[in-house]
Amino acid sequence: MSSEFPVPETRVLAIASHVVSGNVGNKIAVFTLQSLGCDVAALNTVQFSNHTGYHQWTGSKVSAEEISSLYDGLKQSYLDDFDMMLSGYIPGAEAVSAVGRIGEDLREKSLAGSSSPGGFFWVLDPVMGDNGRLYVAEEVVPAYQALIEHADLILPNQFEAEVLSGVKIVDMDTLKEAIEMLHRRYRIPHVIITSVSLPTSDLPPQHLSVVGSTMTSDFRPRLFKIVFPAIDCYFSGTGDMFAALMTARMRQAIWEEPSDLRTRRSWLSGDEADVLSLPLVRAVERVLGSMHEVLTKTAEAMAVAVEKTKATTAAALVDGGEESKKKAHLLTSKNAELRLVRNVASLRNPEVVFKAKAI
Amino acid sequence: MSSEFPVPETRVLAIASHVVSGNVGNKIAVFTLQSLGCDVAALNTVQFSNHTGYHQWTGSKVSAEEISSLYDGLKQSYLDDFDMMLSGYIPGAEAVSAVGRIGEDLREKSLAGSSSPGGFFWVLDPVMGDNGRLYVAEEVVPAYQALIEHADLILPNQFEAEVLSGVKIVDMDTLKEAIEMLHRRYRIPHVIITSVSLPTSDLPPQHLSVVGSTMTSDFRPRLFKIVFPAIDCYFSGTGDMFAALMTARMRQAIWEEPSDLRTRRSWLSGDEADVLSLPLVRAVERVLGSMHEVLTKTAEAMAVAVEKTKATTAAALVDGGEESKKKAHLLTSKNAELRLVRNVASLRNPEVVFKAKAI
Repeated sequence: MSSEFPVPETRVLAIASHVVSGNVGNKIAVFTLQSLGCDVAALNTVQFSNHTGYHQWTGSKVSAEEISSLYDGLKQSYLDDFDMMLSGYIPGAEAVSAVGRIGEDLREKSLAGSSSPGGFFWVLDPVMGDNGRLYVAEEVVPAYQALIEHADLILPNQFEAEVLSGVKIVDMDTLKEAIEMLHRRYRIPHVIITSVSLPTSDLPPQHLSVVGSTMTSDFRPRLFKIVFPAIDCYFSGTGDMFAALMTARMRQAIWEEPSDLRTRRSWLSGDEADVLSLPLVRAVERVLGSMHEVLTKTAEAMAVAVEKTKATTAAALVDGGEESKKKAHLLTSKNAELRLVRNVASLRNPEVVFKAKAI
Repeated sequence: MSSEFPVPETRVLAIASHVVSGNVGNKIAVFTLQSLGCDVAALNTVQFSNHTGYHQWTGSKVSAEEISSLYDGLKQSYLDDFDMMLSGYIPGAEAVSAVGRIGEDLREKSLAGSSSPGGFFWVLDPVMGDNGRLYVAEEVVPAYQALIEHADLILPNQFEAEVLSGVKIVDMDTLKEAIEMLHRRYRIPHVIITSVSLPTSDLPPQHLSVVGSTMTSDFRPRLFKIVFPAIDCYFSGTGDMFAALMTARMRQAIWEEPSDLRTRRSWLSGDEADVLSLPLVRAVERVLGSMHEVLTKTAEAMAVAVEKTKATTAAALVDGGEESKKKAHLLTSKNAELRLVRNVASLRNPEVVFKAKAI
């Protein structure tokens, strides 16, 4: 392992959306993974001018057939030697199924070939909705449900965890129940629920938590929680940044363990492992360190940018016309783009300040 | 300017091809420019599984209409505030013209608006052919000829310089003539001809040269040459790496000059400037430093990889069947992919060892 990079040579297939301008999806994943030293194959599921939070964009989606065909193109030229796969936004149920077949195929190869069962690891972000509502077509839900068993780590938000588990999360008990259901129903070894917010929470004000678990051999959860301060602004792409960082940091954490672990399917720690010693925990702690630094710096840069465009947006608010409101929204969206490139040091060498607690 | 990055905040529109696996086109440009600190908007002109040097690939081209539409999408959301543009491979004459209209539009904005004439700079790599033959359709040539006057710096190879200038380059005199013709005919201020190879050369064995010029106000060339050792292997994407590095290093070199220069159209140095003091010269020297380091390390890594796949390729050569030969070619193509990610230090902090001489 080079001292410069946290991960050994790692070849990752990243499947997500591409935007020309700004940072969401693969635009985040590719840069983040490359900055941490990964060789990234980027299969773009859309090419849009900008992310949809602007409320207007141009470009087009890539069809399920095209996604499958691009993967076939890799295979026929011996370019499918991936150590890991990261999947994010996928447009439509058929495309979700196509990506599922890619994951399954890579899994089969790792179980059959000269590789080891630990030779392939799939991080799946089941992008379906947030805050109580789906923002994809309803048929996407069963498409995801059918493929999760082939993944190794899933990163649903609270709503997506509810949709996948069938458990409404209202307190810590139902949260545990949902995670246990994910382990049992889908045999999915590692789960992280991002941005948990419970009505009966004991969190300090303006704080959120991440709750995760690596299952035991009999599908019991080993649960932990990390509390971190929320940044009072809505940024697009935070989930994508979390997923990309998790992919690299999981690889790093496994490579810090005795070499036996990396040969096992899903890098699943033995039942004797204590929750706080799990590689998943170390990975999330590092990820949240990077997230907090990048979001803090983005908020700072945004404040400066907002000041610069103040005259324009103020005029829009006074004016109150539809066109002016629209312009203000567009300028705000641009100012809120994640500042990744010039904060690469925060991606690579974060300070770990938020520590996990066992639940 | 941050001490971490060689360039001030710079927003670049990069228009080139995208490959899922490997490094050519925008896959190189985006990472290289981001690593040097630029905010990159990446407009992909194709999405292919891999580069065409493998002789087989899947994926599709983006139409001229889609390219224009993606740019319109940026414009309608105030995302067209580019400091620079880099254009590489564009599929077909109509798409070349569409990219030309984008460049023209950004140029007009910089001349008309609150920006300065130096507020936009276009680096154009006129990808048409090499070694005496076109690898694009014939109608692409006039399409390029029509748009070069809107660019600021062009990076033809020797063959492309011949095609654009109409001058057959056989010795140093005809090389000078070709460059002067490019300055005069297209009013193009900065020209670099990459990989010059002349029959009557005085170069040491296994060496190549780059020849460049920044014109005077009356279109006379100020010519320089840099000699560097060739690496005995054909790598795809070297031209794309050169172009991406030039984009960032040109910006850096101009920002090292008195601030007056960056406000002038095309960042054109005054007639009093001596050739070896040109920003273009400093930029190319740094670029060649990075190129040499990355190519050397790629050749080293390739030797290791070739050793690993030796059994397979040796069998192919002994066997001699078409399928085996094909497999050997595919494995060699993969091993020859540029090793960018783990040599990012060479992109960012190259040693400058090859120095320019005035011609």
